[in-house]
Amino acid sequence: MASLLRTASRARPALARSAVRPTARSAPIALQRHYASAAAASAVAPNNSTPALFPDEPSGPIIRTEIPGPKSKDAVERLGKVFDTRSLNMMANYNQSYGNYIADLDGNVLLDVYAQIASIPVGYNNPTLQLAATSPEMASAIINRPALGNFPQHDWADILQTGILSVAPKGLNQVFTAQAGSDANELAYKAAFMYRRQQERGGANVDFSEAEMTSSLTNQSPGAPDLSILSFKKGFHGRLFGSLSTTRSKPIHKLDIPAFDWPVAPFPDLKYPLDQYAAENQAEEQRCLAETERLISEWHSPPVAVVVEPVQSEGGDNHASPAFFQGLRDITKKHNVLFIVDEVQTGVGATGKFWAHDHWNLDTPPDMVTFSKKAQTAGYYFGNDDLKPNKPYRQFNTWMGDPARAILFRAIIQEIERLDLVQNTANTGAYLYDGLQRLSEQFPNEIQNLRGQGQGTFIAWDSPRRDEVLKKAKGVGINIGGSGERAVRLRPMLIFQQKHADLLLEGLNKIFKS
Amino acid sequence: MASLLRTASRARPALARSAVRPTARSAPIALQRHYASAAAASAVAPNNSTPALFPDEPSGPIIRTEIPGPKSKDAVERLGKVFDTRSLNMMANYNQSYGNYIADLDGNVLLDVYAQIASIPVGYNNPTLQLAATSPEMASAIINRPALGNFPQHDWADILQTGILSVAPKGLNQVFTAQAGSDANELAYKAAFMYRRQQERGGANVDFSEAEMTSSLTNQSPGAPDLSILSFKKGFHGRLFGSLSTTRSKPIHKLDIPAFDWPVAPFPDLKYPLDQYAAENQAEEQRCLAETERLISEWHSPPVAVVVEPVQSEGGDNHASPAFFQGLRDITKKHNVLFIVDEVQTGVGATGKFWAHDHWNLDTPPDMVTFSKKAQTAGYYFGNDDLKPNKPYRQFNTWMGDPARAILFRAIIQEIERLDLVQNTANTGAYLYDGLQRLSEQFPNEIQNLRGQGQGTFIAWDSPRRDEVLKKAKGVGINIGGSGERAVRLRPMLIFQQKHADLLLEGLNKIFKS
Repeated sequence: MASLLRTASRARPALARSAVRPTARSAPIALQRHYASAAAASAVAPNNSTPALFPDEPSGPIIRTEIPGPKSKDAVERLGKVFDTRSLNMMANYNQSYGNYIADLDGNVLLDVYAQIASIPVGYNNPTLQLAATSPEMASAIINRPALGNFPQHDWADILQTGILSVAPKGLNQVFTAQAGSDANELAYKAAFMYRRQQERGGANVDFSEAEMTSSLTNQSPGAPDLSILSFKKGFHGRLFGSLSTTRSKPIHKLDIPAFDWPVAPFPDLKYPLDQYAAENQAEEQRCLAETERLISEWHSPPVAVVVEPVQSEGGDNHASPAFFQGLRDITKKHNVLFIVDEVQTGVGATGKFWAHDHWNLDTPPDMVTFSKKAQTAGYYFGNDDLKPNKPYRQFNTWMGDPARAILFRAIIQEIERLDLVQNTANTGAYLYDGLQRLSEQFPNEIQNLRGQGQGTFIAWDSPRRDEVLKKAKGVGINIGGSGERAVRLRPMLIFQQKHADLLLEGLNKIFKS
Repeated sequence: MASLLRTASRARPALARSAVRPTARSAPIALQRHYASAAAASAVAPNNSTPALFPDEPSGPIIRTEIPGPKSKDAVERLGKVFDTRSLNMMANYNQSYGNYIADLDGNVLLDVYAQIASIPVGYNNPTLQLAATSPEMASAIINRPALGNFPQHDWADILQTGILSVAPKGLNQVFTAQAGSDANELAYKAAFMYRRQQERGGANVDFSEAEMTSSLTNQSPGAPDLSILSFKKGFHGRLFGSLSTTRSKPIHKLDIPAFDWPVAPFPDLKYPLDQYAAENQAEEQRCLAETERLISEWHSPPVAVVVEPVQSEGGDNHASPAFFQGLRDITKKHNVLFIVDEVQTGVGATGKFWAHDHWNLDTPPDMVTFSKKAQTAGYYFGNDDLKPNKPYRQFNTWMGDPARAILFRAIIQEIERLDLVQNTANTGAYLYDGLQRLSEQFPNEIQNLRGQGQGTFIAWDSPRRDEVLKKAKGVGINIGGSGERAVRLRPMLIFQQKHADLLLEGLNKIFKS
């Protein structure tokens, strides 16, 4: 099943063929009524050129008040008394949100191409997920949460095999489950440190020395070794102490927090359009690879792993070519350093392949691939048995993931297969990219460095008035996010179709004209 | 509402009075039938001296095979192909588990006084939680998981106020939500570092310097400051890189993982029985306090906070007196160091008060209190507004907790109030402790250093043949856990009653006689 998902250009997978239902299950009656009346009031014309994956979606955004409207303002003020609302973007009413559309408290309904920071995969109130969420199996997973390492439930192997592991990246057949992207990365780092030290000790059967045991408890070497993880400038891998030490996106993410003295390599700063700067970009990637190799060889605390995002997301949607990543794989193999691909934001279909690193055609798979966000659960995949620590309780914690979220991911995978959503995302992305390219010719100052061609809907561009654009987008009924200092990043769901792309392009056109 | 829960010795709270139902809702019919027939086959006599909180529970353990039995062995082998099973204690069938009893795949049903490493609060398949888990609100929280910092749901303030915040420790009225105990602690540490640096800069309105901004991205001081968190020998605070740097429980938890060079202070090593060693123990606590104060003053990377468990749990169930914790609070105030109480394992009623630090009668509350496990959600409480970072997006991540688990904690709180479970735990704990004390007189070599008097059911003792005792316990129908090198730790649920205590005492008696 995994192989069927991996290549978006394949035909609809067998599972979907045997149960073809081209649309999502129906919306609840109340939502249908809501949107029927709302659509009549909507100022935006519907576009029905493609068969709808979510037939009961509103036909377009509905704008009834300024955003935030009066009810939202009241609610935000109330929430502010008990919760930090300074990063609040929009107070949502998820009961009224459906498919690609997010509703607020004032009756506004926005086309959502940010999708909870790229984490909603198959639509708000997706009926297939609703079935999974109301199953007896889910209820049991919620109320009888096990300590999975000690007392796993009898069907945990099934849940893994028919869910998380059914979409494991090529060459990786095992998983360690986690709670979110940040700890998924840290657990992968821990596996990498244990792997390196085991090699240094001479294998899995060599016992820890007394000096290691004793010094580990006082955080000193050799028990707590002077080793490191290498990451890249502008990379983002989370905000816990280990993951934050590899995050280099923005000072606001890191200020005042102690960090490990780990090395940071330059990430290619490509020039656009790519075809006009092929030679310069190739040289830039070579420069970054050379510096990476130098750091691996020379850094005072030797790196045991390199961690990289297929597209640097939080850091500004920075892309590199498959050749760069192939080069990284080569360097890591050459120096016996593990290659960790952080697919927390890129994974689960958004780039038009199930995993973004499928675009690279690597000779050998990454050593570990981390995931979260659209998976709605988290962890790291691996294939090499030696990455299992030599003793139990070394990679361990109380919950070790969450069966409830693993059950949800299984339903998400089924929905992706049933509706062929990776292919949909590849197709819609190509259509959207073309439209944006045309728009960038019309408004060259508004859309700079357009990027993400051939990467599904994982598209971004730079904007000299980015924050203003994001704000104005709400006024035309679209919820968009930014990344880095000046990038507009598109992160629609996998059910985003051409008609939604048309609405987005139309909305952007309005903003740029204003 | 918070105040009503805090003191276990109070009368039943108002909410519970208005809706008195002294027992849990009925078990599903299938489970009732299962246990009716199972009880008939059970070899252990029922004890019905106290009204049952879970009337449909089995009347005692049911042992049908060796543990693991043949079905469990098959299932473990199958799971082992995709998941690390070396730490597996027992493969569970949660569909057949109920109340205090955990079932396996071979029809064995054990009295569970380990409760998923102290994390199941109100019984397996608790009917009240079942209602919450099957509510439309829960389904929405599962399938529409928000990025809480950006797009909170409209009822998030309600969920917090009627749930997590309704049981906030005295003096703390705000919460930052997290996923599990380990990241809850790390988020508290981050808040502590930001707080200290803000003071050093001269207040919330002083901007970051250019040097801070730049150096933060390369993990160097001053942006990534040389500051620390002080923790205690044998303390356990989690296994991510920051929390693991404060964990000092066992080498196996820490080996091969780089750690911050942070200070560790001695934790009192008390002698039992306490009344025979009052003077020695007082001196020991004074010694530990003095060394803590010295480390705060002299450590090369100044501590910004002290983190401590009310009872060191993973590290071997090590207790200290309220005077010790009062002393810690005094020292931290004197040196402008924050006082973080890690209630991940002790919180939510297990010690016979809602929060274990309620036993200390502090003059001023802790600065932060972290929680997880029995709350089934996680985070840290705080009260001082200055602990909020001065800008948004400093304490932030995609999900920032999980409304589904917050809704579950609200149901847990309601169940605790409805059945007066903190008082129940205080009462049952006193009864159980007395029984254990009698048993320790009969078997002085089997039960050494009995501890936890007046601490609800949070009871432990040392055993020279601990692992054998834990193994034999399964044979007499009881699931028990250990902690540290040789402690037997009891962590029953809050619905543990005298009849269960009798079964436990009877089972221990059998083991000790063997």
